[in-house]
Amino acid sequence: MIEDKTPQKTSISQLGEFGLIDHLTQHFQITQSSTLKGIGDDAAILDFKDKKVVVSTDLLIEGVHFDLAYMPLKHLGYKAIVVNLSDICAMNAKPTQITVSVAVSNRFPLEALEELFEGITLAANHYKVDVIGGDTTSSQKGLIISITAIGAADENEIAYRDGAQSTDLLVVTGDIGSAYMGLQVLEREKQVFLVNPNSQPDLDQYAYLVERQLRPEARTDVKTLLHALEIKPTSMIDISDGLSSEIMHLCKKSKVGCNLYEDKLPIDPQLISVCEEFNIDSTTVAINGGEDYELLFTISINDFEKIKANPNFTIIGHMTQESEGIHLITRANTKIELRARGWNALEEE
Amino acid sequence: MIEDKTPQKTSISQLGEFGLIDHLTQHFQITQSSTLKGIGDDAAILDFKDKKVVVSTDLLIEGVHFDLAYMPLKHLGYKAIVVNLSDICAMNAKPTQITVSVAVSNRFPLEALEELFEGITLAANHYKVDVIGGDTTSSQKGLIISITAIGAADENEIAYRDGAQSTDLLVVTGDIGSAYMGLQVLEREKQVFLVNPNSQPDLDQYAYLVERQLRPEARTDVKTLLHALEIKPTSMIDISDGLSSEIMHLCKKSKVGCNLYEDKLPIDPQLISVCEEFNIDSTTVAINGGEDYELLFTISINDFEKIKANPNFTIIGHMTQESEGIHLITRANTKIELRARGWNALEEE
Repeated sequence: MIEDKTPQKTSISQLGEFGLIDHLTQHFQITQSSTLKGIGDDAAILDFKDKKVVVSTDLLIEGVHFDLAYMPLKHLGYKAIVVNLSDICAMNAKPTQITVSVAVSNRFPLEALEELFEGITLAANHYKVDVIGGDTTSSQKGLIISITAIGAADENEIAYRDGAQSTDLLVVTGDIGSAYMGLQVLEREKQVFLVNPNSQPDLDQYAYLVERQLRPEARTDVKTLLHALEIKPTSMIDISDGLSSEIMHLCKKSKVGCNLYEDKLPIDPQLISVCEEFNIDSTTVAINGGEDYELLFTISINDFEKIKANPNFTIIGHMTQESEGIHLITRANTKIELRARGWNALEEE
Repeated sequence: MIEDKTPQKTSISQLGEFGLIDHLTQHFQITQSSTLKGIGDDAAILDFKDKKVVVSTDLLIEGVHFDLAYMPLKHLGYKAIVVNLSDICAMNAKPTQITVSVAVSNRFPLEALEELFEGITLAANHYKVDVIGGDTTSSQKGLIISITAIGAADENEIAYRDGAQSTDLLVVTGDIGSAYMGLQVLEREKQVFLVNPNSQPDLDQYAYLVERQLRPEARTDVKTLLHALEIKPTSMIDISDGLSSEIMHLCKKSKVGCNLYEDKLPIDPQLISVCEEFNIDSTTVAINGGEDYELLFTISINDFEKIKANPNFTIIGHMTQESEGIHLITRANTKIELRARGWNALEEE
């Protein structure tokens, strides 16, 4: 599919490895003062002075993490960066640099790689992170993207997963579940397309959900927002695998329990109507759907007044003693034990 | 082949993603004082104080960068680390941390992954670098390894590719060409094996060459050696693609020329005899064979006395004005223009 969609196709091998790297990285700009030397030597050189250095890495594999049938390459490039920056944000740190390695089959035309790097460049510029290195090589099959994100933070700002106290409040940014339903919409359209290749999908009424799936954003703004509110999160994680799974991580690492309130979950109205259309429970989606890349964190109960009316944040629960377990309190005031994966409202009670 | 060699085979999916990561990373130890937080959160936290941070990354793909038919997984794990640490050494910096991401087909048994991580752990322990993060996922085909290496150096120690002066001496560590011929030996044995699977290869007389290919070492010692000699390299690069190609890089970046002397090339006696057996010119192999992971660097002519009798280093040439070009001076005192790839003694003169 990729190979047929551009009229002029340039073979990657025409450029050679070094020519290809030069060509693809020509639009990257260095904007961070911590980047002393970017691409062009055996390694990059960074200077963080008295800041701590934050490092995270991810591997994205075609057919496992993404499907090029409905994921445009430009979006994929953008999202690959977002996913990694989100991990830096989840430490309450500021992303500053990334390395980007890409492996593609030789049958991948140059134009496809250019599209991918257009998305990568867009994200790098948007988030003001410097692309300081990487590797471009051929693969035996499909597209492989490996990204390492680097960030900086003062030591006293960094939020780990293990700092939640049993009296803390549980807070989430933005809304949740939409990225998952966006994927369901796209999967359905793909099946329709396979049956009838001439069908033109009308995604207008799903626009928000599809955008949350195809073009999520990393919450690089949250660190600044919290700093302005004079709130230091006691623990933090990003929502990649789903709210339920992330709550379990925070609880396990912090040795606390949690009560999560169904009626507090921030759900977009579009998600509710599409869940009705798909006949799926929106709470199930909000709790188990992943890839929102929102931040989930705990704050001291003493910070309640500072955050309670802030539209950027929703208090969705509170931590408890570890022995009390991890529960969802439903609208009907029923207490359901949360499970990391495959949680199903029908399974319990 | 991989899948049949262990009697008990454990499916990776039995462990689940988090169980797998815990299982594979359990033997990693944190030894660097700059590692504040390793594996176990959204990102690792490092503290380099007043040192500069050096970052390099590489992607290794089965069938492109390695062949599991003759590359044991333990060796592959070790070599994958070495290749990346070598890039840090090539900045005259000290490697301190790595991230390791691995993607494998689900048909890969757990025992094979354990073997790979045994090699990775061996290298991490040997070079005293901390494994601070990574990602384990499934691939559509084959084995994919992505490594990011991080190191530290004082700013005044760092050697870039662009610092060579036209009066500098060109120096190389160890010997060169052996890793390439080791690969030729292994390729030949593979062909023999394909014809006659019962043949037992006798590699004794090729032991050094095969070891250079299967188990190269990163020259982490060179920084200390040069420091003791009070020599600051003016430029530096590691030999991954071959001496000729690396000289071109140094010359291009530093805007200088170079005279390389054939009779000075450090070649192991085993390489010479095996080149005779294979009917290949040993100079061609020494100049174009890659994967030696030795360091190539330039020093001021004023440092000649400090280095001339040192068994760790060989002066193989000197830099010149850029306009003079890049040449090999043969034993017969003929001047041949060096080319980056596919250099062939018969092509010129």
